[in-house]
Amino acid sequence: MKKIIGMLLAVIMSSNVALAQEMANTRRARVISPEITADSVKFHFRAEYATTVTLTGSWQKMGEAPIAMKRDANLVWNVSIAKPEADLYYYYFNADGVATLDPSNSSLQRDGASYRNIFIILGDNSADYMDCPEKGNVSAVWYDSPTIGAKRRMLVYTPYGYNPQAKKKYPVLYLLHGGGGDEEAWTSLGRAAQIIDNLIAKGKAVPMLVVMPNGNANQVNANIYNVPGQPSSMLNNDIQSDMYVTSLIKDVIPFIESHYAVIPKKEARAISGLSMGGGHTLRTNYLFPGYFSYICPQSTGAHPHNQKNSAYAFDEGTLSNYLEGIKKAGYKLFWLGCGDVDPWYPEAQEFDRLLTQHGMPHTFYVTGGGHEWKNWRHYLDTFAPLLFK
Amino acid sequence: MKKIIGMLLAVIMSSNVALAQEMANTRRARVISPEITADSVKFHFRAEYATTVTLTGSWQKMGEAPIAMKRDANLVWNVSIAKPEADLYYYYFNADGVATLDPSNSSLQRDGASYRNIFIILGDNSADYMDCPEKGNVSAVWYDSPTIGAKRRMLVYTPYGYNPQAKKKYPVLYLLHGGGGDEEAWTSLGRAAQIIDNLIAKGKAVPMLVVMPNGNANQVNANIYNVPGQPSSMLNNDIQSDMYVTSLIKDVIPFIESHYAVIPKKEARAISGLSMGGGHTLRTNYLFPGYFSYICPQSTGAHPHNQKNSAYAFDEGTLSNYLEGIKKAGYKLFWLGCGDVDPWYPEAQEFDRLLTQHGMPHTFYVTGGGHEWKNWRHYLDTFAPLLFK
Repeated sequence: MKKIIGMLLAVIMSSNVALAQEMANTRRARVISPEITADSVKFHFRAEYATTVTLTGSWQKMGEAPIAMKRDANLVWNVSIAKPEADLYYYYFNADGVATLDPSNSSLQRDGASYRNIFIILGDNSADYMDCPEKGNVSAVWYDSPTIGAKRRMLVYTPYGYNPQAKKKYPVLYLLHGGGGDEEAWTSLGRAAQIIDNLIAKGKAVPMLVVMPNGNANQVNANIYNVPGQPSSMLNNDIQSDMYVTSLIKDVIPFIESHYAVIPKKEARAISGLSMGGGHTLRTNYLFPGYFSYICPQSTGAHPHNQKNSAYAFDEGTLSNYLEGIKKAGYKLFWLGCGDVDPWYPEAQEFDRLLTQHGMPHTFYVTGGGHEWKNWRHYLDTFAPLLFK
Repeated sequence: MKKIIGMLLAVIMSSNVALAQEMANTRRARVISPEITADSVKFHFRAEYATTVTLTGSWQKMGEAPIAMKRDANLVWNVSIAKPEADLYYYYFNADGVATLDPSNSSLQRDGASYRNIFIILGDNSADYMDCPEKGNVSAVWYDSPTIGAKRRMLVYTPYGYNPQAKKKYPVLYLLHGGGGDEEAWTSLGRAAQIIDNLIAKGKAVPMLVVMPNGNANQVNANIYNVPGQPSSMLNNDIQSDMYVTSLIKDVIPFIESHYAVIPKKEARAISGLSMGGGHTLRTNYLFPGYFSYICPQSTGAHPHNQKNSAYAFDEGTLSNYLEGIKKAGYKLFWLGCGDVDPWYPEAQEFDRLLTQHGMPHTFYVTGGGHEWKNWRHYLDTFAPLLFK
């Protein structure tokens, strides 16, 4: 008896989750979801007592109704959709009014406080979103920001083969998230590590570091780390966006250039960001021209902060001065991406005209689609090969 | 009109999540959950169409029934529990048979494929589980393992102030997870970064690196990164545990000692692990005595792999030889932790006797409780101050 218990315990110790699964299997078959076939994606969800279950996913058009699922004899709810085009997609279920994750799929992405399951449809457009055999590392890095008055968190990607103990030095892309995002948005929603891994492995992009700070000046880090019961990591809400932009120059860049094997020169610095981060990208170069040779705002435009009574309510003359400042400082690439149904598209078009008026060489990269990650992943995949060359 | 739209867009860009929240607030009040008061923890969950909602949490005894929640006039389900003792707890809701997360609490931990919400009850016992102002960094690091034949993922904690560009060198704790876990178990469930941060900040522990590999030799990384639709990161299931133990010595340690500012000596190496990782801790020292001065298995014992027909079915004589090997190689600390209702407690007691029989100085640290993270967090908090001194 003791021996049998011992053997059982050994099994539990070596794989207690597998055992629990095994025991569950004797009661009911395992659900595998999603199932990706040649022409469909099938979703399955066990919910014995639910009366209505629906599926919502990012392949749907804005405002499209949730997709009804149907219960089978095993009390599993099922639905099949036509295979969408190659890309990364998120989805979630709703059972009797409660939005819930797919328990059969442990791969998640996070948008603010919302967790969603993900899957990938393979194809040319999504090839760089998949795991690459030669992977770089992503670190959660704490740095001191005297400008904001806090120790703050950022993610730092170092490319495959990076070794701080070796002599090789690398260039750096500073990559900024949008409103509602945080320092993890680009690695979670944006697949930034996979994209840069694949571009480097294919020889399309130069090996580089990617630095992803938290652009919400009133946070020390992403909200998910505010564990209930422990002191909050929120700062004073009055902290202005310009303090963040200033901290990029005064705190983040000096930290990176003193802690990593990087080239501390303008020619080896790029900056990009989406939406609010596109605004931060421009604002950084307005206030501190001459730090970046590569300037790549996404889904933003001429007046990203055109609020009345705001520090950003600058007039055309001020904007012209800012642009002349960037022109005078010099740059190698000015690359603006925007979707043609993005609400910011008219502002992006105006910015394109202004850059032309000022005689500033630039690329205005227009795609279909709106203010969405589908575009921002694609923009990173498109402009990163142009950097540091 | 265009100006109003521009202003609206500016608001959306700078805080689209806040706006969505604001709009939601006009329809229904925001739910805050959990609420921690002086003597209770209150849970709240909006589920308009559910007929039964329950709460399950780690403060409950094994096998205890889920706690029924009660719906109020606003269609929010509520329940209050007596405040449990100081510690970190997890919980989840179940609505009409579907286990679901608390949408009001974005702090999660992950155990295998299961995500759970967490909260902390403040007190002496949990003080080191909370965010420390002086934080180290956690990196997801890919390394080549020729032993296993794959590039694999591990987490590496570097302490506050660590700078690979500086001259200071650090000791290293190799910290191993249990069955069902992966390379993220110790930072997610085990609060390893917070514990070491706090111990260092208080001057109780020496600044050190903590290396957390994936102990499932058939995985390249945690299962959650197997995104449906992309090639799987699972390896051949026949890969033996001894290959992992060998890869620790042949692949992991050389990688760490060539990429980080660490002291490449036995006196600056510690190893610990829980359950299966306790077995790996012992097995590493059985097969490769002399690599570690600090050996700290948790919740394991004399025969962690006592399966019939297994490579681990060694007899007393073989075990004695292994222990003599460790004794001969020499060590500074042999520290074994176990709960007195852990199923492994009898085996741990036997191991304690065997170490005494062999004249091997050691600590047998016995606590209440069983085979659970409550203990493993506490053990790390207890033995880490004894390392490298």
